[in-house]
Amino acid sequence: MSGSSMGVLFKVTTWGESHGAANGCVIEGCPPLIDLSEADIQTALDRRKPGQTAFASPRREPDTVEILSGVFEGKTTGTPILLLIRNRDAASSAYDNLRDVFRPGHGDFTYLKKYGIRDHRGGGRASGRETVSRVAAGAVAEKITHAAGISVLAYTKMLGGIYADPVLCDPDTVSVKQVVENRLYCPDPDAARHMEQALEEAKAAGDSLGGIVEIVVRGCPPGLGEPVFDKMDADLAKALMGIGAVKGVEIGAGFAAAGMKGFEANDPILPPARFFSNHAGGILAGITNGADIILRAACKPISSIEKEQQTIDIHGAPAKLSVKGRHDVSVIPRIIPVCEAMVQIVLADHLLRQKAVAG
Amino acid sequence: MSGSSMGVLFKVTTWGESHGAANGCVIEGCPPLIDLSEADIQTALDRRKPGQTAFASPRREPDTVEILSGVFEGKTTGTPILLLIRNRDAASSAYDNLRDVFRPGHGDFTYLKKYGIRDHRGGGRASGRETVSRVAAGAVAEKITHAAGISVLAYTKMLGGIYADPVLCDPDTVSVKQVVENRLYCPDPDAARHMEQALEEAKAAGDSLGGIVEIVVRGCPPGLGEPVFDKMDADLAKALMGIGAVKGVEIGAGFAAAGMKGFEANDPILPPARFFSNHAGGILAGITNGADIILRAACKPISSIEKEQQTIDIHGAPAKLSVKGRHDVSVIPRIIPVCEAMVQIVLADHLLRQKAVAG
Amino acid sequence: MSGSSMGVLFKVTTWGESHGAANGCVIEGCPPLIDLSEADIQTALDRRKPGQTAFASPRREPDTVEILSGVFEGKTTGTPILLLIRNRDAASSAYDNLRDVFRPGHGDFTYLKKYGIRDHRGGGRASGRETVSRVAAGAVAEKITHAAGISVLAYTKMLGGIYADPVLCDPDTVSVKQVVENRLYCPDPDAARHMEQALEEAKAAGDSLGGIVEIVVRGCPPGLGEPVFDKMDADLAKALMGIGAVKGVEIGAGFAAAGMKGFEANDPILPPARFFSNHAGGILAGITNGADIILRAACKPISSIEKEQQTIDIHGAPAKLSVKGRHDVSVIPRIIPVCEAMVQIVLADHLLRQKAVAG
Amino acid sequence: MSGSSMGVLFKVTTWGESHGAANGCVIEGCPPLIDLSEADIQTALDRRKPGQTAFASPRREPDTVEILSGVFEGKTTGTPILLLIRNRDAASSAYDNLRDVFRPGHGDFTYLKKYGIRDHRGGGRASGRETVSRVAAGAVAEKITHAAGISVLAYTKMLGGIYADPVLCDPDTVSVKQVVENRLYCPDPDAARHMEQALEEAKAAGDSLGGIVEIVVRGCPPGLGEPVFDKMDADLAKALMGIGAVKGVEIGAGFAAAGMKGFEANDPILPPARFFSNHAGGILAGITNGADIILRAACKPISSIEKEQQTIDIHGAPAKLSVKGRHDVSVIPRIIPVCEAMVQIVLADHLLRQKAVAG
Repeated sequence: MSGSSMGVLFKVTTWGESHGAANGCVIEGCPPLIDLSEADIQTALDRRKPGQTAFASPRREPDTVEILSGVFEGKTTGTPILLLIRNRDAASSAYDNLRDVFRPGHGDFTYLKKYGIRDHRGGGRASGRETVSRVAAGAVAEKITHAAGISVLAYTKMLGGIYADPVLCDPDTVSVKQVVENRLYCPDPDAARHMEQALEEAKAAGDSLGGIVEIVVRGCPPGLGEPVFDKMDADLAKALMGIGAVKGVEIGAGFAAAGMKGFEANDPILPPARFFSNHAGGILAGITNGADIILRAACKPISSIEKEQQTIDIHGAPAKLSVKGRHDVSVIPRIIPVCEAMVQIVLADHLLRQKAVAG
Repeated sequence: MSGSSMGVLFKVTTWGESHGAANGCVIEGCPPLIDLSEADIQTALDRRKPGQTAFASPRREPDTVEILSGVFEGKTTGTPILLLIRNRDAASSAYDNLRDVFRPGHGDFTYLKKYGIRDHRGGGRASGRETVSRVAAGAVAEKITHAAGISVLAYTKMLGGIYADPVLCDPDTVSVKQVVENRLYCPDPDAARHMEQALEEAKAAGDSLGGIVEIVVRGCPPGLGEPVFDKMDADLAKALMGIGAVKGVEIGAGFAAAGMKGFEANDPILPPARFFSNHAGGILAGITNGADIILRAACKPISSIEKEQQTIDIHGAPAKLSVKGRHDVSVIPRIIPVCEAMVQIVLADHLLRQKAVAG
Repeated sequence: MSGSSMGVLFKVTTWGESHGAANGCVIEGCPPLIDLSEADIQTALDRRKPGQTAFASPRREPDTVEILSGVFEGKTTGTPILLLIRNRDAASSAYDNLRDVFRPGHGDFTYLKKYGIRDHRGGGRASGRETVSRVAAGAVAEKITHAAGISVLAYTKMLGGIYADPVLCDPDTVSVKQVVENRLYCPDPDAARHMEQALEEAKAAGDSLGGIVEIVVRGCPPGLGEPVFDKMDADLAKALMGIGAVKGVEIGAGFAAAGMKGFEANDPILPPARFFSNHAGGILAGITNGADIILRAACKPISSIEKEQQTIDIHGAPAKLSVKGRHDVSVIPRIIPVCEAMVQIVLADHLLRQKAVAG
Repeated sequence: MSGSSMGVLFKVTTWGESHGAANGCVIEGCPPLIDLSEADIQTALDRRKPGQTAFASPRREPDTVEILSGVFEGKTTGTPILLLIRNRDAASSAYDNLRDVFRPGHGDFTYLKKYGIRDHRGGGRASGRETVSRVAAGAVAEKITHAAGISVLAYTKMLGGIYADPVLCDPDTVSVKQVVENRLYCPDPDAARHMEQALEEAKAAGDSLGGIVEIVVRGCPPGLGEPVFDKMDADLAKALMGIGAVKGVEIGAGFAAAGMKGFEANDPILPPARFFSNHAGGILAGITNGADIILRAACKPISSIEKEQQTIDIHGAPAKLSVKGRHDVSVIPRIIPVCEAMVQIVLADHLLRQKAVAG
């Protein structure tokens, strides 16, 4: 109940601080007899790893995962799976100047208010580094969703105000190939180039950028999600809003639906059981309807910037702050595999929950 | 684990179908020695009651609440509180034609896929009627938040494409008086008049409207919310997305934050511990920072419309459907007290959770 | 988290006080499409009802159950089931003298210490009356266990120091017929007669008696129970120890196993997969092994006695107390259906949990 | 929900197999600002360590604990604490002959039935080795209970049929000094000598012994425990019954209470708020009353014995088995710190839960 767990039957609990000895998670409820190796998880971690673009933190973390329990002779045993990722390149001394001052837009102030203590090194528990554990858990969840015929694809819809072309960035047609073709995971290569330029300019200015991630879930069977509070969309919204930078979540037509009329917003149903449109985003009354699930997450710009900002120190005195450290210029693209992982975990959990419901 | 519970320490479990014998909830974890009477809860229920405007369902429900447990001589005892609201005016036969056909935009199809059975009468468990239990629970939660100096105010920001004036509808200044002055709970009286007109037109056309609700939480102390999954914003997003009509949720600057730069999005901190702006919407790293919490929920138009729609029957054959029954033209304004209730429950829960954290 | 819930997937939350308006429970996670009527539940309640023997409370409660949700046209729908039992014959004024004095052996003192308030009427929430809700829930659980081929039988092994003949009271052979033949649910009719006499003598002396209940579960498939904390025996122990009067629980050989040697205690395994003996009581490493589950619960004598006792009042001053009210002389036999219900609920829950584990 | 977690607010999740890479646990909900070092935990682990008596497994495990998260500069931060204990001396090949045969009295058969796979090496997840994680977590829990003035003391009441002298082994007076004076943790030194002799004889005979552990909790404030299912005694019973070898649990007078009359069993209350006797074992209606909590756990003899036993192999064919490996002759004394740890965890959890209840 510390808030570090998600899922009911497929349950992930993460632990670890940015500059602590390690990060990791324990996964409870993973069914037995699933093939699982460290290599399976490593592939996912490599996508999230820092140091891969000029706009990402230069911190060098191999992010090597160890499976310490729950797997025997290459198969899951049904018992808890412990995943461990050692922190290697934690240059904590670079954060010494943040010991006594609160970074605007960060959890420094709120953690201290909540706990009366904070690990200031690299953001401690509030660091984006914690998401390495989520991605590792997501790779295990994917084993379950994949077996059920489900795939999850996230990509950059907007970055720094630059939108991908809506035709190229159509959730009905966007392909993995399109997405992995550039390092910003944007299905529109021209937009990607402009986004890179915007990142360079922001970096040069000591500033940072935000963006919008879109996620499409394909192959999801109807019937997943639990009325009335653990709706599929409610759980997905919580999962995405639980990522540090996310300030808004929408499903299907989302905010645009608020401006529609009922006749327009409703998706007509065609025989034998197909939806003519997908304003619902694949979910009706909190339960999947068999159509693709479509989600969007709005990500604020990275809070840590070199540009000098007005703040206070821990004694309440005014202070000026220029955050040096090692930081990304935007959470995009590194947030992309994190979004996918969160969605994978929610889907795996609801697949297991549905097994208990179904006769 | 049926999905009908929310909250960890202040826990609400709702039960009941639209045309069943009753609706209600059991509230666990309410602290003892709080003054609580049926009249306290009734006031909240009366705001949500159907039959109060021309655009709301003409169903006549007195919505009289009974407290069946957990209260002794006018005070809570710390044991579970059962709230019961009998259904009186359930005209189930009006729904007979919906037994064999799926209403577009509704949970009819997905409930049947999930459970293999559905109570078709008035939407069964998926009906908006279920929210009467949430509003009742919210009134109990409010006792806890009120004692902590917190207030929650929701209002109509947009309806049918008509936006309230941003100056009148400013979360920093909007007052309860402004909100209750018109029956659409819109702080801008002119906009409210246009909204009423739009509702009349939509009703005449057999159609329905959507809108945006904004919610401001004042007086919330810093330190509420749990890293890293049970963030305050994550729990609020889940709570609001768990309301039937909601398709999007944002906090603070929300989707607009995605287009900002870091220097603009960060809220500078002024001595002794005040935020110059509030793009964060009162929450940093998932923990309240003492500023107002600001939320917006996008509500799709009501799915039940008289206009004829294309659908299928339970055998997969094509069908035409014109939903007669008794329905609102928009979830606004009746969703307003529901949004407030959901937020109240989340806040009460996190207030109790923080007591366990604090030394 | 108020402690009034049990079960993870088949989850029962009870509510209600002895002299409140009603008692009842909400059942979450009951699978859909199960036949369920009020008559099904009534049969179970009738076994627990007061006023049936001379040694039981003369309180006259019809204990009529109403199903208020979760059932449609005679079948469960998968949504929460609310069961309501109105309290009719609550003679609260008979308890006025208990307002200011603590009954020895009761929760009066501890509830006041915990909550700072207590409903003194008839024991409030701590009353045995609360178990009416458990028996109702157990009747629903039985639908699930019965479908899985499982039966649960509880009976009186000892009452007031009088033991049933071990041959007649052998869990391997004891039959329902034997048990229901006398009103003390004792498989040994001679012992039952002596027990009745002991009850009469205790009643005449203004005193009360304790006893031991044995429970046998037949037909349970192997594989139920979750390592390492939610072991089947751990969950059963918690369930039984959570009944007011129970002070000890043992499984299989129980305390006698502590005096055995390993060679004696181990149950040899015979082909194809049968256990030669059953000292394990049907559970190995917390997981059922397919043999009968055998449990025993030690019940203390009823605390409410007419014999004058030494106590204190709520101001800490010494007091003498003779409890009048309406009380059973022993929790046996009325605790028998309660024990069965608790076991049924645990089994139903683990049946559903195993469905999520099994491929 | 895999069953490997215990506690609601102070929550411990263990992971690890006997011959896997490591064992450990994640602790959620530990309050911030508590002094915690590896040395604090090591002291507790050293008491449980194998290889310390001739009757314990000769496996050589240093059982060195690492704290990987949740502690900053020697103080807890309120975030999850990960404790890691590497397995060093896992002689797995010694277990090769157990790959295809089920050990009587063990979980081999039931794990395979449940999961369709089992890690046969050293018992896998069902091994007593898993309790190293519980003892580590118990040491953290002790920080919380100690600050509340609570102490927990467990000791050997009976081993191999030899009972400690009831005067020396009186929960009212037994001291830590008495208990640690001999390596069987028995407060009666003469009995301890006889117990050692019995262990030698059993070892020589290739057999094993059971025993009874008694636990006394001192200094516990009144008011802990939650009606009606999460009673303090119910949670303690579950915790103790969740230890592999335990087959029975009793509290206070326990099974003896079943033979008492009410006037005898009730503990008279003396001014200002003291109990004349303690048949209740410190708990009334599931809530602590301020008197000492007294518990007893019946432990079966170790299942792994050299004496040849009848069993079957995984194909259902008959087999003879003599378990070689490295095993204790009795779970006593190594189960003693495990019992203490389980009780510490339950108490720490209920202390935090009570904070949320109390105004």
